[in-house]
Amino acid sequence: MGEKKSTNIILFSGDYDKAMAAFIIANGAAAYDHDVTVFATFWGLNAFRKNEQVITKKGKLERMFEKMMPRGADNMGLSNMNFGGMGPKMIKNVIKKHNAVPLPDLIDMAKEQEVNLVACTMTMDLLGLQKEELIEGVEYAGVAAYLSEAENGNVNLFI
Amino acid sequence: MGEKKSTNIILFSGDYDKAMAAFIIANGAAAYDHDVTVFATFWGLNAFRKNEQVITKKGKLERMFEKMMPRGADNMGLSNMNFGGMGPKMIKNVIKKHNAVPLPDLIDMAKEQEVNLVACTMTMDLLGLQKEELIEGVEYAGVAAYLSEAENGNVNLFI
Amino acid sequence: MGEKKSTNIILFSGDYDKAMAAFIIANGAAAYDHDVTVFATFWGLNAFRKNEQVITKKGKLERMFEKMMPRGADNMGLSNMNFGGMGPKMIKNVIKKHNAVPLPDLIDMAKEQEVNLVACTMTMDLLGLQKEELIEGVEYAGVAAYLSEAENGNVNLFI
Repeated sequence: MGEKKSTNIILFSGDYDKAMAAFIIANGAAAYDHDVTVFATFWGLNAFRKNEQVITKKGKLERMFEKMMPRGADNMGLSNMNFGGMGPKMIKNVIKKHNAVPLPDLIDMAKEQEVNLVACTMTMDLLGLQKEELIEGVEYAGVAAYLSEAENGNVNLFI
Repeated sequence: MGEKKSTNIILFSGDYDKAMAAFIIANGAAAYDHDVTVFATFWGLNAFRKNEQVITKKGKLERMFEKMMPRGADNMGLSNMNFGGMGPKMIKNVIKKHNAVPLPDLIDMAKEQEVNLVACTMTMDLLGLQKEELIEGVEYAGVAAYLSEAENGNVNLFI
Repeated sequence: MGEKKSTNIILFSGDYDKAMAAFIIANGAAAYDHDVTVFATFWGLNAFRKNEQVITKKGKLERMFEKMMPRGADNMGLSNMNFGGMGPKMIKNVIKKHNAVPLPDLIDMAKEQEVNLVACTMTMDLLGLQKEELIEGVEYAGVAAYLSEAENGNVNLFI
């Protein structure tokens, strides 16, 4: 299957709307029969966090990051017109009204379509995020793994 | 002309400076004889809005988005140093002073160079934007159309 | 060496964390034996500014930009959780604690690995930045030079 096309998305952003765009493209590419990878790094890792609190041992600084960062896709803010949290509610309302797919469901769809969800281990370490805190089905790798895919990729995006 | 190179830019951002970068690259690539597409989605759609108000029928929520989002390229803010609207004025001053090209003119140049300006129908629907509200010369398509171009593209960017 | 793969990163953002991501990828790609270029434009140019003040002749508007923009990689803010300058300190603390590499050292590593650091002359002119204000080892070019590399590139990213 060396001929299969490939889409590799770096999800750096922790914004609801940008992550939506990432997963709409990822799901589209998977439907197009691409090999698709979403490589989450920095704030993008929050999209892979579980909603519930997870008991972990970590330092003070790491605990602070844990508390301040949104716990999972559904709790992320907007890149634009966030209005202190009002914006995401508005977007979720229009998503519902227009029968569009909310972000957590887009991520589930991606999993079903065998999109590779990869968490960047280096930035997990940096932000003090542990594997237990991330959703099931996520793989763990570094920038070398990303590059080995992307250097043969067709659609490479940084979001 | 299957040999023609291609540049495909997703314009997600509604920031004046980011849209400038997108259209400078688009115009450069067109001058380089690439097939060029700017695919506007989410806040990037605002770059394609007409400056004048357009009478439409729409729901309350969609009307709210319409009012809150900038009406056209010339009314967009900056991604950085926006200073409540002062930043765009400063940038427009330096653009004038240095004989650079302001955003609305960059978009006109792109049209003249036959850059494909595409508005993402899914996010238009989401934000309640209607075709009458967008400038002439814009085409309408979804993520599938984007991917069918980008999978054979040379320069694919998400801005 | 026409067979060498290539990575071309447009660094538009002036955020510490985004520039970190850019240089981690750049250094990774260089280690993978890619030809690598980081093309800094708009706020991304600040990553190439010298820390110390440089005496130059320039207009009022350009002087204002000079004063308001961060002087060099170490003075840049975060794209997220900046908290009026607290965020960068926190990030620098976790970087130290986890033996990760701070941004100025990532840029030095990139130079040692012969990553091409290119400053966009058009936006330098726009923001009134002069060559004396940028660090040693930076080259100067425009969008045409970027495109001539990127159109044959393997990993093209806009950050």
